[in-house]
Parts: sequence; structure tokens; C-alpha cells
Amino acid sequence: MEALKERIRQEGRALPGNIIQVDSFLNHQVDVQFLGRLAEAFAQVYDIRRITKILTAEASGIPLATVCAYRYGVPMVFAKKAKSDNIEGGLYQSEIFSYTYRRKVTLLVSKDWITPKDRVLIVDDFLARGEAMRGLLDIVTQAGAELAGIAVAVEKGFQHGGDKLRQEGYPLCSLAIIDGVDSNGFIFREE
Amino acid sequence: MEALKERIRQEGRALPGNIIQVDSFLNHQVDVQFLGRLAEAFAQVYDIRRITKILTAEASGIPLATVCAYRYGVPMVFAKKAKSDNIEGGLYQSEIFSYTYRRKVTLLVSKDWITPKDRVLIVDDFLARGEAMRGLLDIVTQAGAELAGIAVAVEKGFQHGGDKLRQEGYPLCSLAIIDGVDSNGFIFREE
Repeated sequence: MEALKERIRQEGRALPGNIIQVDSFLNHQVDVQFLGRLAEAFAQVYDIRRITKILTAEASGIPLATVCAYRYGVPMVFAKKAKSDNIEGGLYQSEIFSYTYRRKVTLLVSKDWITPKDRVLIVDDFLARGEAMRGLLDIVTQAGAELAGIAVAVEKGFQHGGDKLRQEGYPLCSLAIIDGVDSNGFIFREE
Repeated sequence: MEALKERIRQEGRALPGNIIQVDSFLNHQVDVQFLGRLAEAFAQVYDIRRITKILTAEASGIPLATVCAYRYGVPMVFAKKAKSDNIEGGLYQSEIFSYTYRRKVTLLVSKDWITPKDRVLIVDDFLARGEAMRGLLDIVTQAGAELAGIAVAVEKGFQHGGDKLRQEGYPLCSLAIIDGVDSNGFIFREE
């Protein structure tokens, strides 16, 4: 999506530790109107009329997931991240390694809110190694729900989590794939 | 707001530890269309044309803040919660006690995204003792920004954080105030 790439070129920063900082519009300050354009771009890829639920993980995936749910007219569910071993019952659980927290965290979703009747679109702001995405996919599988697709704003292609998902046949739409950074700036993968 | 109270009556549960669970529509599964109605209710109380920014704290405040920002046509900023003492510069910081994490956490907002030119509407899903709200107010003050108002979906009146804010003169709009629970269900404060 050219508008997103242009925005990353203008406002993004590459920081040490493979961090791509786009906190002017995506994951700290959030340009919610612009997220509406991203939601429209996903709707050109997936048949949103058949989606019954949006699933994301807290925290920075929530704004984009909320705007998608608002525009598509379906509920949104956000998985909670628990750092405790003391977790109540009635929950789908998937343990992932969080690079943000530098430790294992458990993604939790109540069994009440994803069921075998659901067709789920997973939405997230970033996809890097794919740890969080694996956890969300695991939860969709545990629920016996159907995966409608995966919708990501920015994929860090150089960390290859997205490539592995595509090789395994998952439907994945990333609106901007960054394959690297050089002295001229971000290198985006050709569409 | 009668529609919110009715929804709490129908779907809410009072759990041990003063927890009011409304995770069918507000803070786990999220009825994003219904949040649009809450955003409209806030717009009847505050002059939203003069608001330049919505501020909330991760994670469960983000959906409502996103919908408010989307409808009002302004950016949304969410404060991050850091449990680390290793925090970079360029940030407004406010230390609060988190009853969710049962420890002190630091709310962080980059100085780039709230400035003295801003008129800020603080939005959150819940107000209880008011710890997180004090942190957000502190950040607005540190930024030299103007507070346009505080917009809350559900206030736990029996924990009195909202009452203290009102006594101190803060503009606070809570769409449903729960003063207690008895055998007949939730007791809402009269408007």
C-alpha cells in the first residue's frame, strides 16, 4: 500500500535492535483516520462480509483491530497477555516468547468469545518473527474457529516470520513489507 | 446513559475483589459499534470541536479511545505502562499503583505527542480508585496542555476515585456509575 510506505518513509525511524519506530501514527500516537484507510485496503483482499470477528493481541494491535471491527461491523476480541502462572479456567491459552518483555508470556482469550461458528480475521500492527501471530493462530485453532485471514500493517520482512507463514499456506496480507534499511532509507519489498 | 446501564444489567457480573466484569462488550470482546454510541454521548457533554487529542492508557482503554478519536477526527495517544526502571529520555512519566499488576507501574508518553498546544480529552473504560486517571492527568499537566475533560464509560462509584476528582473540580463525565451491588443486581447512581 503506497500511502503506508510513504508514511513510513516520511515518519519512520530505524533504531538499534531491529526496531522500526512509527510511533507518530501507528503505535503510540495513532492516526485513527489513516487506520481507516488500512482497514479499507484489507477489505480489498479479504471477503469481509464473511468475517464474524476480529482478533488481536494487546496492546498496540488494538487501535487497528478496533477500526477494522468498526468499519466491518463485527466485534473485536483482544487477547490479554498474562505474566502470571495463576490463570483462571475457561480460557484458551497460548504461550509465546515476547521480545517486548524479553520473557515468555501467555496469550489468553475467554472461551466465550471465540467459538467454532466464528470466521476470524487476525489483525496486528506489526509482524516480525511471528511469535505473537503464532499464539493468535493457536487460539483460533483451539477454538475450532475458521481463519478468514491475517491482516498486518507493517511486516519486518528481514525477520522472516511472515515468509514462514506464507510457506505454510496461511493467508497473510501485509500492507508494507520492510526488507531492510540502507543509507537511502527503508527498502520495501516489491508487491 | 440508560443503554449502557441496561447492557451492564444484562451482561455484567460482580466478582470477588470489587471486580465488575463486562468483558462481553467493553474490555475483552468489544462491541465497537456500541462504543460509537458512548462516543456520541460524550460529544453531548464536551465541545469536541475544540479537542485536539484523545489520551488513554493501555490496554483496555484503547478501544473506546480509538472510536472516540475516529468519530471526532483527532489523533489518539495511548500511554504505555512500563514495569522497568530502564526508561529512555524524551518522555513524560507518571508513577502509579496498578491494582491489575499489584505493583507500581510508570505511565509513559513521548513528549512529541502531547504539547502545550493540545486540548486533551482523557478517555478510559473504567474509573475506580482513580490511580491510572491521576497518572494521565499528571502527564497532561507536565505537557502544559489544556484538559478538555475526562470521559469514562463505567465508574465504580463505591471506590470513590471519581468523587474525589469531582470535588477537586475536574470535569468528569461517567456514563454509568455503579454505587454497589445487592441481591437485585447493580445499584446505579441517579443522574
